[in-house]
Amino acid sequence: MLTAVATAAGAPLTLTEREVPEPGPGEVLVRIIACGVCHTDLDLVQGRWPIARFPVVPGHEITGEVAALGPGVSWPAVGTTVGAQFLGDSCRHCDYCARGEQILCPAKRITGIVMDGGYTEYAVLKADFVTPLPDGLDPVAAAPLMCAGLTAFNSLRQAGVTATSRVAVIGTGGVGALAIRYAAAMGARVAALGRSPRGEAAARELGAERFIATGDTDPAEALRAWDGGADVILNAAPATVAATAALTGLAPDGTLVLCGYDADPLVLPPAPMVLNRLHVMLNPSGSPRDTRDTLAFSAAHGIVPDHTPIGLEGANAALEAMARASPPNRSVITFA
Amino acid sequence: MLTAVATAAGAPLTLTEREVPEPGPGEVLVRIIACGVCHTDLDLVQGRWPIARFPVVPGHEITGEVAALGPGVSWPAVGTTVGAQFLGDSCRHCDYCARGEQILCPAKRITGIVMDGGYTEYAVLKADFVTPLPDGLDPVAAAPLMCAGLTAFNSLRQAGVTATSRVAVIGTGGVGALAIRYAAAMGARVAALGRSPRGEAAARELGAERFIATGDTDPAEALRAWDGGADVILNAAPATVAATAALTGLAPDGTLVLCGYDADPLVLPPAPMVLNRLHVMLNPSGSPRDTRDTLAFSAAHGIVPDHTPIGLEGANAALEAMARASPPNRSVITFA
Amino acid sequence: MLTAVATAAGAPLTLTEREVPEPGPGEVLVRIIACGVCHTDLDLVQGRWPIARFPVVPGHEITGEVAALGPGVSWPAVGTTVGAQFLGDSCRHCDYCARGEQILCPAKRITGIVMDGGYTEYAVLKADFVTPLPDGLDPVAAAPLMCAGLTAFNSLRQAGVTATSRVAVIGTGGVGALAIRYAAAMGARVAALGRSPRGEAAARELGAERFIATGDTDPAEALRAWDGGADVILNAAPATVAATAALTGLAPDGTLVLCGYDADPLVLPPAPMVLNRLHVMLNPSGSPRDTRDTLAFSAAHGIVPDHTPIGLEGANAALEAMARASPPNRSVITFA
Amino acid sequence: MLTAVATAAGAPLTLTEREVPEPGPGEVLVRIIACGVCHTDLDLVQGRWPIARFPVVPGHEITGEVAALGPGVSWPAVGTTVGAQFLGDSCRHCDYCARGEQILCPAKRITGIVMDGGYTEYAVLKADFVTPLPDGLDPVAAAPLMCAGLTAFNSLRQAGVTATSRVAVIGTGGVGALAIRYAAAMGARVAALGRSPRGEAAARELGAERFIATGDTDPAEALRAWDGGADVILNAAPATVAATAALTGLAPDGTLVLCGYDADPLVLPPAPMVLNRLHVMLNPSGSPRDTRDTLAFSAAHGIVPDHTPIGLEGANAALEAMARASPPNRSVITFA
Repeated sequence: MLTAVATAAGAPLTLTEREVPEPGPGEVLVRIIACGVCHTDLDLVQGRWPIARFPVVPGHEITGEVAALGPGVSWPAVGTTVGAQFLGDSCRHCDYCARGEQILCPAKRITGIVMDGGYTEYAVLKADFVTPLPDGLDPVAAAPLMCAGLTAFNSLRQAGVTATSRVAVIGTGGVGALAIRYAAAMGARVAALGRSPRGEAAARELGAERFIATGDTDPAEALRAWDGGADVILNAAPATVAATAALTGLAPDGTLVLCGYDADPLVLPPAPMVLNRLHVMLNPSGSPRDTRDTLAFSAAHGIVPDHTPIGLEGANAALEAMARASPPNRSVITFA
Repeated sequence: MLTAVATAAGAPLTLTEREVPEPGPGEVLVRIIACGVCHTDLDLVQGRWPIARFPVVPGHEITGEVAALGPGVSWPAVGTTVGAQFLGDSCRHCDYCARGEQILCPAKRITGIVMDGGYTEYAVLKADFVTPLPDGLDPVAAAPLMCAGLTAFNSLRQAGVTATSRVAVIGTGGVGALAIRYAAAMGARVAALGRSPRGEAAARELGAERFIATGDTDPAEALRAWDGGADVILNAAPATVAATAALTGLAPDGTLVLCGYDADPLVLPPAPMVLNRLHVMLNPSGSPRDTRDTLAFSAAHGIVPDHTPIGLEGANAALEAMARASPPNRSVITFA
Repeated sequence: MLTAVATAAGAPLTLTEREVPEPGPGEVLVRIIACGVCHTDLDLVQGRWPIARFPVVPGHEITGEVAALGPGVSWPAVGTTVGAQFLGDSCRHCDYCARGEQILCPAKRITGIVMDGGYTEYAVLKADFVTPLPDGLDPVAAAPLMCAGLTAFNSLRQAGVTATSRVAVIGTGGVGALAIRYAAAMGARVAALGRSPRGEAAARELGAERFIATGDTDPAEALRAWDGGADVILNAAPATVAATAALTGLAPDGTLVLCGYDADPLVLPPAPMVLNRLHVMLNPSGSPRDTRDTLAFSAAHGIVPDHTPIGLEGANAALEAMARASPPNRSVITFA
Repeated sequence: MLTAVATAAGAPLTLTEREVPEPGPGEVLVRIIACGVCHTDLDLVQGRWPIARFPVVPGHEITGEVAALGPGVSWPAVGTTVGAQFLGDSCRHCDYCARGEQILCPAKRITGIVMDGGYTEYAVLKADFVTPLPDGLDPVAAAPLMCAGLTAFNSLRQAGVTATSRVAVIGTGGVGALAIRYAAAMGARVAALGRSPRGEAAARELGAERFIATGDTDPAEALRAWDGGADVILNAAPATVAATAALTGLAPDGTLVLCGYDADPLVLPPAPMVLNRLHVMLNPSGSPRDTRDTLAFSAAHGIVPDHTPIGLEGANAALEAMARASPPNRSVITFA
């Protein structure tokens, strides 16, 4: 089978032929249908994942069909269309695993970073970490839901967004665009923040009632002018500073949730935060339970990201394009 | 009546005689029984409250007896023993006031900072911002509950402490000592962090099962060795850096709540926080609903702070002592 | 001013001329624009409110304009368009009032039952129990939001409906139709239950994905066939038995919330409930904080009920029509 | 090995010798140390479990030592002291299992009812449904924690008990006595309700601040006299009517949680419930995550039930004694 392998930090991916692997106990073999190209994959090849185990097959926005079951595995049945995500394995015995919060397990393992992922025709995955796709989701279009969608949806949920929230989304790329759509479908009011005023029309179409061009305006001030501030600010831009700049645009009791960040630290001045009881959280994607809810909600509301199908041989080019600028569309590697 | 007045930033308090004021509509006149000396009072006289309206009577850890009612006021009845706190007034019409979260009201006003407080024999206070003391609380001992107690109790509650939480309290002075006792009475397990190992015996007596001397040990590492970390870290030390140093001692999904801080910003590195879904919040004391619960819980569990009664003429000395070092006991101004 | 008065249990309303009343301390005079005719008004005139204080002016779905302020009242300003609801007064001092949960106050008082309501041209109302209407809501169309809307919205919220819930609404009249629309706007999936299959098209247009005709089908069985059952069943039909019949159509951990009921008791068999951890709650409309959220959400999503404007002289006829059958449209008394 | 078997509904247990079974994939063999005698076991032998699969070995309050691991099982290690409970197996793939709420799984299986339980020297159990005992819990004393303890602890938690709740516990036998102790250790105030005034001293020693003898007093009235009513009423008496009688002793927004009940239905009159927004829930024991928390909390607070060790040959006598009257002490079958 054709496989793309990250061999070392800083090296481009190598395309190679490999044997189709066999699933062991607790595992399934999945014939890959599609795998989204995520910013994390770029971080991997550029060497920003110190825990990476090279050589490794990247990719954690996986959809495919169960092709074979390992010994003792009875679910999901062969032929089921499933998705697989960033979180690939956990200890199954700690308090977090017992609560269905495997993403918090101290022994969690990351797909495409320390376990082989989806830039390949077949992958062996843990049976209890794949999720059947609900009816009505196209497996190619749904691939980016497995990470970008999950991160957007679960961050809104973890931050306590309800139908009466005012939600500000910084960044209107992959995660941001989905977050705008999810928040609007949850009944919340949404403001979108983007660098250039050119993003306004697209943001409004996604469901934002307001657009703030951060190149022209102080984002915190503009948010405070929005009925007193945002109840939730979700930073989907890959820059910590974007979150810091917007922080005091939170309404009292508001929450900043950081999905996007870079090497910069969050620098938070206590005095302007304390009298408004502000909250900050950092949210990593989610657990299998969250994947289920993301997929069900996406199917019920017809939310799938704009995407561009590419072949596996185009993976390096897609990563290079991403390194230059966040492209408007998610690239999704598909297998015929 | 004898009154202590802060006349300007940086000046010591002036003792003076004033007329007993008359309560207006919505107000009550309270004969002060006791007023705790809070670190905030020191911040006021040293000029760290830019919103202060000099001249002002400091003091927001007030207990007293209702002596007269303003026009139209029928509650609490004359003769009722009440407490009054940091939060002295709000707009009553915004969404936060409607929810009983007046502490978040954009138009909130602070007792002893922008309104006259309790360093005096009689004070006019808003009727709906005083709280009747439950039976069994001595009004002198209870005075520091109005701020130190409220802050400790409500921070634990806002941070989501439950009977199964592991709670770390940094600082074992006024707020910290009360937080240890409250958390233990809530059924939680408690670790206390203090600079010197000499604090250990006292902390254990308050209910801590573990003591970490931060002068000798890395606090984050020591907390991680406590069954995987704290679910909640409450920083009661008046130094932001104490919180930053302990941050990665949080267990996954853990919350750092900042009551104590100084001019230093919180500096938070995203990478070590995100995979554990960490939370940070800054909590200001609380609303009248929280005062009620603090007092009821304190009465039910017999929790009152150690305190040293002083006369009003000792107020400047008490503030100076506090400026040199956090004294073990709260000074409480009493009126015969 | 022209006023309709309920003089005794069982008697029709009497139309009479009265003096325009004057607002006292804490009160406002409101020039009534519209008042919805609620099923509770029928209960009043038919003698099913033992606490009623005859003679009383019925009506608690009130919108109007603030015409004068009582002594000491500064909010809302004269000229503000406001709404007033079922809950007309409370003690302001109990723990529930302190939390903004005045609907739970043991001393609460009900508009149009023990205090004069809105079947009149001017009414004196408590200033802190009226709610300014958000921009974009027509005061005639919005009148039924003050009770039917509030009850539907707040019941969904109290029952914990989220964007991922499956919600079943029994009854598609006033409260039911609004509940379907609110639940759909919150992102939930909705099933509507009505007696006759003729209601299907209307229910689907309101946002239901499924319609169950309870005349033809066992409702519990039909709900269990809907992906395992409803997370929330809201009974908006004025018959307790409708709720009992649907109960085991709840999914595990599901909640039955009763808005509609009659004199029949809820009869619940423990055995089929316990293994699924089922919940039952009875929800009375809501507090001012809930009115605010209902109105804001309705304005943001353009949700107002179908309604038929009538004159005050048509009130008795409207009540008689309601006694014969729940009419599809809410009657709203309007004043020129 | 010596084994007690329930052969048919209505028949006493038969003692017999069986081969020690072998654990299959996903299973462990546990050498039983102790097994509590639960009221459910009496229900089983008296024929009140229609889903029972005779012949079956009763018993679901199990503690023991892992003696062997089935194929592919690596946790918990041989030699670990573990407990096992009512919930013995589930599907592992539904939304409830994904959330760690296996007790709600539609395919859940019950230990000692449809799967062999702990009235025997060795049992084969599902590895992911046993829970390691925390340090400091004696495995004989801890056996009843696996059901009576779990039910009491988790019912309080599911009902939302916090440190500021007033909790009323009906029944002071196995589950009731533990509920009193747990609620007190959570910081809540506790009232105990028992039939005879003779129970008062014991209830106060367990932590109740008030005792209501329901033979002499109307329980609802007595509870309302307790600062306005209970926030939570937990019915631990095996009689539905005890709960019905106390219902209106709930404070506004209060919750009745039913652990104890019989064949009688709960009969709830809507009118007196709705204006106070009352809640009713029925709670079945809990999931493995709840067992962990029950055991950890019990160990931290030194809570174990009074119990009387008996031999397996005494099981029938213990059940007969239970049929006559709830004995004060839990019988625990121990194996030398």
